[in-house]
Amino acid sequence: MKKVKVGIAGAAGYTGCELIRLLALHPQAEIIWLMTGKTNEGRRLHEVFPHLRGLPERVFQPLDAGAAGDADLAFMATPHGVAVSIVPEFLEAGCRVIDVSADYRLKDPKVYEEWYEKRHTAPDLLEEAVYGLTELYRSRLPGARIVANPGCYPTASILALAPILREGVARPDSIVIDAKSGVSGAGRSLNLRTHFSETTEDLQAYSPARHRHIPEIEQEFSLLSGRKTPVTFVPHLIPMIRGMLVTAYCKPVREVDTSELTELYRGFYDQEPFVTVLAEDELPRTKDVWGTNRCEIAVRYDPRSATILVVSVIDNLVKGASGQAVQNMNVVFEMPETSGLESLALYP
Amino acid sequence: MKKVKVGIAGAAGYTGCELIRLLALHPQAEIIWLMTGKTNEGRRLHEVFPHLRGLPERVFQPLDAGAAGDADLAFMATPHGVAVSIVPEFLEAGCRVIDVSADYRLKDPKVYEEWYEKRHTAPDLLEEAVYGLTELYRSRLPGARIVANPGCYPTASILALAPILREGVARPDSIVIDAKSGVSGAGRSLNLRTHFSETTEDLQAYSPARHRHIPEIEQEFSLLSGRKTPVTFVPHLIPMIRGMLVTAYCKPVREVDTSELTELYRGFYDQEPFVTVLAEDELPRTKDVWGTNRCEIAVRYDPRSATILVVSVIDNLVKGASGQAVQNMNVVFEMPETSGLESLALYP
Amino acid sequence: MKKVKVGIAGAAGYTGCELIRLLALHPQAEIIWLMTGKTNEGRRLHEVFPHLRGLPERVFQPLDAGAAGDADLAFMATPHGVAVSIVPEFLEAGCRVIDVSADYRLKDPKVYEEWYEKRHTAPDLLEEAVYGLTELYRSRLPGARIVANPGCYPTASILALAPILREGVARPDSIVIDAKSGVSGAGRSLNLRTHFSETTEDLQAYSPARHRHIPEIEQEFSLLSGRKTPVTFVPHLIPMIRGMLVTAYCKPVREVDTSELTELYRGFYDQEPFVTVLAEDELPRTKDVWGTNRCEIAVRYDPRSATILVVSVIDNLVKGASGQAVQNMNVVFEMPETSGLESLALYP
Amino acid sequence: MKKVKVGIAGAAGYTGCELIRLLALHPQAEIIWLMTGKTNEGRRLHEVFPHLRGLPERVFQPLDAGAAGDADLAFMATPHGVAVSIVPEFLEAGCRVIDVSADYRLKDPKVYEEWYEKRHTAPDLLEEAVYGLTELYRSRLPGARIVANPGCYPTASILALAPILREGVARPDSIVIDAKSGVSGAGRSLNLRTHFSETTEDLQAYSPARHRHIPEIEQEFSLLSGRKTPVTFVPHLIPMIRGMLVTAYCKPVREVDTSELTELYRGFYDQEPFVTVLAEDELPRTKDVWGTNRCEIAVRYDPRSATILVVSVIDNLVKGASGQAVQNMNVVFEMPETSGLESLALYP
Repeated sequence: MKKVKVGIAGAAGYTGCELIRLLALHPQAEIIWLMTGKTNEGRRLHEVFPHLRGLPERVFQPLDAGAAGDADLAFMATPHGVAVSIVPEFLEAGCRVIDVSADYRLKDPKVYEEWYEKRHTAPDLLEEAVYGLTELYRSRLPGARIVANPGCYPTASILALAPILREGVARPDSIVIDAKSGVSGAGRSLNLRTHFSETTEDLQAYSPARHRHIPEIEQEFSLLSGRKTPVTFVPHLIPMIRGMLVTAYCKPVREVDTSELTELYRGFYDQEPFVTVLAEDELPRTKDVWGTNRCEIAVRYDPRSATILVVSVIDNLVKGASGQAVQNMNVVFEMPETSGLESLALYP
Repeated sequence: MKKVKVGIAGAAGYTGCELIRLLALHPQAEIIWLMTGKTNEGRRLHEVFPHLRGLPERVFQPLDAGAAGDADLAFMATPHGVAVSIVPEFLEAGCRVIDVSADYRLKDPKVYEEWYEKRHTAPDLLEEAVYGLTELYRSRLPGARIVANPGCYPTASILALAPILREGVARPDSIVIDAKSGVSGAGRSLNLRTHFSETTEDLQAYSPARHRHIPEIEQEFSLLSGRKTPVTFVPHLIPMIRGMLVTAYCKPVREVDTSELTELYRGFYDQEPFVTVLAEDELPRTKDVWGTNRCEIAVRYDPRSATILVVSVIDNLVKGASGQAVQNMNVVFEMPETSGLESLALYP
Repeated sequence: MKKVKVGIAGAAGYTGCELIRLLALHPQAEIIWLMTGKTNEGRRLHEVFPHLRGLPERVFQPLDAGAAGDADLAFMATPHGVAVSIVPEFLEAGCRVIDVSADYRLKDPKVYEEWYEKRHTAPDLLEEAVYGLTELYRSRLPGARIVANPGCYPTASILALAPILREGVARPDSIVIDAKSGVSGAGRSLNLRTHFSETTEDLQAYSPARHRHIPEIEQEFSLLSGRKTPVTFVPHLIPMIRGMLVTAYCKPVREVDTSELTELYRGFYDQEPFVTVLAEDELPRTKDVWGTNRCEIAVRYDPRSATILVVSVIDNLVKGASGQAVQNMNVVFEMPETSGLESLALYP
Repeated sequence: MKKVKVGIAGAAGYTGCELIRLLALHPQAEIIWLMTGKTNEGRRLHEVFPHLRGLPERVFQPLDAGAAGDADLAFMATPHGVAVSIVPEFLEAGCRVIDVSADYRLKDPKVYEEWYEKRHTAPDLLEEAVYGLTELYRSRLPGARIVANPGCYPTASILALAPILREGVARPDSIVIDAKSGVSGAGRSLNLRTHFSETTEDLQAYSPARHRHIPEIEQEFSLLSGRKTPVTFVPHLIPMIRGMLVTAYCKPVREVDTSELTELYRGFYDQEPFVTVLAEDELPRTKDVWGTNRCEIAVRYDPRSATILVVSVIDNLVKGASGQAVQNMNVVFEMPETSGLESLALYP
């Protein structure tokens, strides 16, 4: 079978090297170039990422759509803001694009401008871009020219609430999302907040009600519920490398119980290779999906406070970023959806 | 000045040795005995707790109120259920009691029975016991015979919401508490859940809406708000030793803003030596209170979702257990409230 | 191609589940049974190991060679002492055996008795067993009936010093091995030493000069050097899950330098798929081999103290246990040696 | 009693804030100024170190000996190289100086030049400076104008071997020191090596045989043994915040055993308030000295390899830096040596 030729732009960050890890062993993909920003261009792969010494040596090229060659697909693992201008050039160069950054996720350019504080220069592409939460948009992906890969928090949050929002069980004005992420989500750039001695044995909330993933979550919640759905969202930084857990709270529109909710979720995710709905007496933990593209979800009804509780876990770098990008690639190119994503959780 | 003679029952657990740490250097207290359950009785202090080699050697005695001697005060750091029957004996022996376990916190013996699945055999003492959240019950503590020291989650949760519950700003039916705790809260007993390789690089929710601290929180919330106040409460286990962070969400009964809320909190906690209300642009983190008896709180209003957010942090073993017990001792015996609790956070 | 039918005895521990992880996706192997000791027999795979929910459900059988069925190969991931008596039964039942425990590693039954404090009841099999440090014993593996898979410390230590011991560059009476291991090496059994709050933010040496891996290291060092080679060996417990680093020190018999030593090592490991000798200015770190079967080694000469320094790293559960067992299976059954072991390090 | 007026230069790093923590509560000291380099000058204490919110607010001044005012003592917690030129100015201004940096530790300016790659501009002060390993140089400290506070590795290494070097039991040409340090020793400056996701679940050796603490260790070892004593020294970075463990190996000049060695160590450290020699069946761990100025040591003889093993632990920021600086202050000003250093280990 002919392999898909892929390139990775922004390959020197954590999302980038996770793409390399997954694509290097993908049976139907072939990495043909790695591009990066100024800091790392010209450096060798083994120098930047010694953990990839098992792969052939390679050099990081400068970021340049003109050098895309005969790539079928370009992954954008660039910092937010870069893909806005460079994606049109890659499309021009004949590549499909899966953008792992935030630049093509918000359909409304005004919302983008409000949260990212810059004008979006390719508003027409916003419309074309398929929002790559594969479980919800699978049918639009085959052959798509541009896929906007979801953020990590939106992935875990939307998968947690999609069934009850679409079924109209959750009251759209009652949603609280308390999200917790491992530190790798903050990337490889140095920052006092992610300095080892500062982060270890520490726990903090950050950007409460102001995180840039909020409009993305609200956009999708609103589409699912069919009405404007604001969300209270507070993310927290957890002293661990990988893993994301979302605890979602909402009020039901009618009487429900745990058993009914579990059935509803199981029905909704029945055919999904990467989503598991747990039994009524089980709860997910991030370690169980470490290094995998899987999402595990448990749902409960708390009769005392009349509240629905949903807990979902993903690996923020895999299902929350690079793994889902590969999943999207598989669907765009009509390959088996789980191809290259079969590995099991690394435990303990 | 005459020192208060204290004994510690259940001294071989984490709460017990934290009491030893604080009391051994307390200028107005003197430890006269350490008692433990079967496993550790007869063992030497330095054998069980080598980190206390700096203190004189001592032997753990069997748990026996008859051996209380001339102790003025007995701390109960025993597993839940033990103090129910033994506290009356210590009172009889002439000791005051500060119970760090859960046995005397719930005023209603039926609620105790419901959540702890056993009958309370000293219901009259439930009434007498002062709930030792020092900031709320300070005036009742001097001379108290029995103090029920609050749980860690209740301490962080009640301090987080007391100002707006008492002032009637929070809607009592809208409260969600998403709580996160370091692993030391689970104690020194062995369990697969707290096995190093299971807990490190892992994050999980547990006992959602069923944790035994819920009735304690609801009891105090109801007293503060003046009406029955149910709470949605989900605790999470965080891969760190110490530290607790509570993120509380509720709806306001009227229009508010962050500035007004911050003022309200500052007024409420104005004279408190151990509670700090942060500025509008600050957020607390657990590391800043590591090893101290302090609580830090930030409050925000999220206009988009019309929700009040409160974040509070404590050290679960200090303000959440042994430190607050010492604070209560100080007030019961009319010593300076901060005595023995002045140490600064161990950072980084 | 016909798949090798394998069974795993002792499948409910960390070594066992790591074998499941590797073998479940091995293209030429098929797991046909999982056996365990009393504690877990009859339990479901997903119950004991929720991280394996991605695999079909299965039940742990009791440990019983009579139920080996048509397995071609049985892995022993049992506690030390169990395989001594059960391996002969599995051989009888027609299985080849790869013993991941320590029971067949020491050639001299008297040494076994001295260090394990019990008599070895199958001394003839000790002779037959091939010591499965694949890099050193590859030629004896094809078709072997019984392979004694090396311990984690011996694997890292022997790979670190084999080149200079065999070449006669190291003085055999001068060897110091300071070894450091992640906590997963201590297994899944509960112990205060591996309780999260005890191990996190802690570092300790244990069993100095008395660890049971010492005779195994000395046996192989002596074979490599051609003379009795005692070793000073101190292991340390590091607050991380996986990873092992050995720092070895020895005196040279003649003048050497870093460049010559590096060449010597590169020559020795030239064709090895899983061993990488780093450049003179590089040092290995455990994270670079996390989850892989790889070993990375750096060698230096310190002229000031006239000492050779060697640093080697492995993942204690993979190259130090289950991965090497799969590598041995591949060679025993004459399959490609890297089959099923291609995955890259999970980083960061 | 009149308090010693102290200032801290370089107060915005980890060593600096640890000095603040210890001195703020010291009964006989009073901090009168905090100075820092450009980055932090003019910033508020609570802004840079929110964990010190319990102390009165204060502003970091620029580094300037002219502003030393009536300080009796200036601590230098500056980056290596700064104190070389600024210490003479502080002495001129009438302050005594305790230099926590490396600038005045090496007696021979040529050795300083060789390892620090710059000329020492105050060679006469090198001679005057007392090397502040309190246990060895106590008698020279009272009234000293300048104290060179030892490095963390030298503190743990010298305390580990001083008894057998001074007694002539250890062969000076046989010493191997394998040292392990928590990450806080690398300071607060950002670096990829100390980025959370890089350091967590990782273990590495660094600067093998080239660390700048080597000449300091050799200087003191040579003084203790009475002859030139080279040392093989390899430090390792351990994924924990605080704590240092040194494993030292050496050959005895004559037959010894563990019992005799333990007695020798106990005799040597008999009167020391901060050094504990453990029993023959005990081993130290870093957690037992967390946050304290204590050092714990165990010594063993390994008859099989004829090697003496010594394990010592300290908290790198306390006995390895700021705590020892306070201990030295106490002795210089003839206050009780343990003043301000009584706190017990924070455990777990």
